[in-house]
Amino acid sequence: MIQIAVMGYGTVGSGVVEVIEKNKEEINKKSGEAINIKYILDLRDFPGDPYADKVVHDVEQILNDPEVKIICETMGGLKPAYDFTKRALLLGKSVCTSNKELVAVHGPELIQIAHENKCNYLFEASVGGGIPIIRPLNYSLTAEKIDAITGILNGTTNYILSKMEKEGADFDDVLKEAQEKGYAEKNPEADVEGYDACRKIAILSSLMCGKNVKYQDIYTEGITQITAVDFIYAKAMGKTIKLLAQSKEEEGAFFAMVAPFMIGREHPLSMVNDVFNAVCVHGNMLGESMYYGRGAGKLPTASAVVSDVVDCARHIGKVIMCFWDQGDVTLTGIEQASRRFFVRVAGENERKAMETFQSIHVVEADVPGEFAFVTELMTEKEFNEKAEKTGIISRIRIE
Amino acid sequence: MIQIAVMGYGTVGSGVVEVIEKNKEEINKKSGEAINIKYILDLRDFPGDPYADKVVHDVEQILNDPEVKIICETMGGLKPAYDFTKRALLLGKSVCTSNKELVAVHGPELIQIAHENKCNYLFEASVGGGIPIIRPLNYSLTAEKIDAITGILNGTTNYILSKMEKEGADFDDVLKEAQEKGYAEKNPEADVEGYDACRKIAILSSLMCGKNVKYQDIYTEGITQITAVDFIYAKAMGKTIKLLAQSKEEEGAFFAMVAPFMIGREHPLSMVNDVFNAVCVHGNMLGESMYYGRGAGKLPTASAVVSDVVDCARHIGKVIMCFWDQGDVTLTGIEQASRRFFVRVAGENERKAMETFQSIHVVEADVPGEFAFVTELMTEKEFNEKAEKTGIISRIRIE
Repeated sequence: MIQIAVMGYGTVGSGVVEVIEKNKEEINKKSGEAINIKYILDLRDFPGDPYADKVVHDVEQILNDPEVKIICETMGGLKPAYDFTKRALLLGKSVCTSNKELVAVHGPELIQIAHENKCNYLFEASVGGGIPIIRPLNYSLTAEKIDAITGILNGTTNYILSKMEKEGADFDDVLKEAQEKGYAEKNPEADVEGYDACRKIAILSSLMCGKNVKYQDIYTEGITQITAVDFIYAKAMGKTIKLLAQSKEEEGAFFAMVAPFMIGREHPLSMVNDVFNAVCVHGNMLGESMYYGRGAGKLPTASAVVSDVVDCARHIGKVIMCFWDQGDVTLTGIEQASRRFFVRVAGENERKAMETFQSIHVVEADVPGEFAFVTELMTEKEFNEKAEKTGIISRIRIE
Repeated sequence: MIQIAVMGYGTVGSGVVEVIEKNKEEINKKSGEAINIKYILDLRDFPGDPYADKVVHDVEQILNDPEVKIICETMGGLKPAYDFTKRALLLGKSVCTSNKELVAVHGPELIQIAHENKCNYLFEASVGGGIPIIRPLNYSLTAEKIDAITGILNGTTNYILSKMEKEGADFDDVLKEAQEKGYAEKNPEADVEGYDACRKIAILSSLMCGKNVKYQDIYTEGITQITAVDFIYAKAMGKTIKLLAQSKEEEGAFFAMVAPFMIGREHPLSMVNDVFNAVCVHGNMLGESMYYGRGAGKLPTASAVVSDVVDCARHIGKVIMCFWDQGDVTLTGIEQASRRFFVRVAGENERKAMETFQSIHVVEADVPGEFAFVTELMTEKEFNEKAEKTGIISRIRIE
């Protein structure tokens, strides 16, 4: 029997307990030994809960118990999760986490500590909720040189954009509805400004590079400026608008960014709607592969944490392969990245736009008083100069 | 340094050599040791080939060399692949294969022999070409009770159906064109009759059950009866037609089948076009997840074989988890499975159809002289009885 502890009995933590209870048979078979939840750490008490007697309030009880081999960290946030995780790993206890912030900030350090102490720090649930993506990157695509990762990594923004497209509604209205339904937080900043997706692509980018991509270095733009009118144009162009988190290697230069993009209907990510997430991985031998599923939610996320528990259970005392060194990657600024842009200008600026951008593709749509077009391929820098000269209403990058 | 051998220097075998050469750095890093190709087994000689000096004609040379720890079996077919594989495994040499036929027929026996001899029999490339699906099933979805797998598992038929849909063309014409382009074999039976997809879903079903699903037990229907007119109806219904390979567990009963299905535009498999493949896996905690990519082709398939080599290299002398016992699963006949059917009858049979099927949804489309409809949910058995009574032109199952 392998004794484990769950730190944080909130949504994901209680999901972990539920998954382990419900799928006991499968999990114990795959683990090679029975998994038993010995402690649940939380500040609160849970009278009446079937696991009430496992709840402890002092982390020392868990850390000091040599029987506990694996810990699920489902507390979230940096404090005290970082301290608890580090101390557990130093004691040789493996930690499985859904805490994307902690992984994005301290991932490589914690992985190294784990490996030095012959245990593991696993984080499948930190990106893409229940979608297996960390393990495929680490164990499956091992014969590939991965040169691009592009994902829809945030369920809230994808729900909002899907709804805006379907109903022709504006951002604020859909956000309000999403908040009422519990699909968006009261303070939605982390989602709608792209910060959540930024943490996640930082993790995926680091695994792609084998070195550390700091999330602070990633250009991040949210969806708050996207309007119902943008979707009218997108529809006219046979495209949709998605918040993409992207990481690319081009001739030794690394680019990473989060921003809304227009993508064509033939792009596999275009059909990822509502709260679903997906990650496209491009390898030099395999070409494009995609991983799709529920990017959030109690049970999908918990299932990913428990899959890490199974992996740890099968590797007690052994290190599981993970290449994410502490050295930082120097990202190339996105102003050097080339792409096409969809641009809206006021009707009276049509001539100026044509003079400045020269070779453009006009977009016909039923929007009075505006002139819209798609530029040729150009760098962000070049685009910004021309856009400033012209005076534009808005622009959306094209993938 | 880990010495390996490649058996069969055809398309996939030469791809394996190419992948190992091109991505040497990544592969050696992930393997933890350098991988070296010591032998290539083939009946032919390859004068001028950079690997010509590695080519041997006698399998004994490979089997008798204790340095060879891993063998890539890319010969295909049952003979002599089965004998060579078995002998290698008995000698403790791991085998990585792209040979779906051998895996579907002798998989559980070879896995057991491997495990008894502390080596591994891996077959990521046998299903879905380059799409990581075997490893996600075995290592990632370990906290799930998987109750359904549905895949587009054959590139040739998916190319044909995509083309028929796009161009309104008939099966025979598209097949001919596909053969000219090399996307379909001269003898296309294995693909268009669904036999290839059947082998692959047998493998996935076995991994889902943990026991052996015999491919001979799987009801298999190809796409040769699908016509341009069917696509006219599909379009009118907002659906498309795909050859699906399916495996389901419902209250302890296992169903498996391969057949063309009509699927809605909201189904994630509906956007899988051309030679792409995808597999949807449904788990009781995670819900739906999907794995998408190139289902065939030299380099994608070879990449999957080499990912198995990396896995074996990291587990020399150790057994990698794989649950596929030799006991056979008893499949429930599909006549007991319930679904809706799309049905075409001659115009004069409209009244008879309405009397026999009673509650139906008429499908309006511009096809003269016909009456088309969708049935209520009913078992295949019930449907067949009613269809016989009515006299129908054709039917397509609805997913």
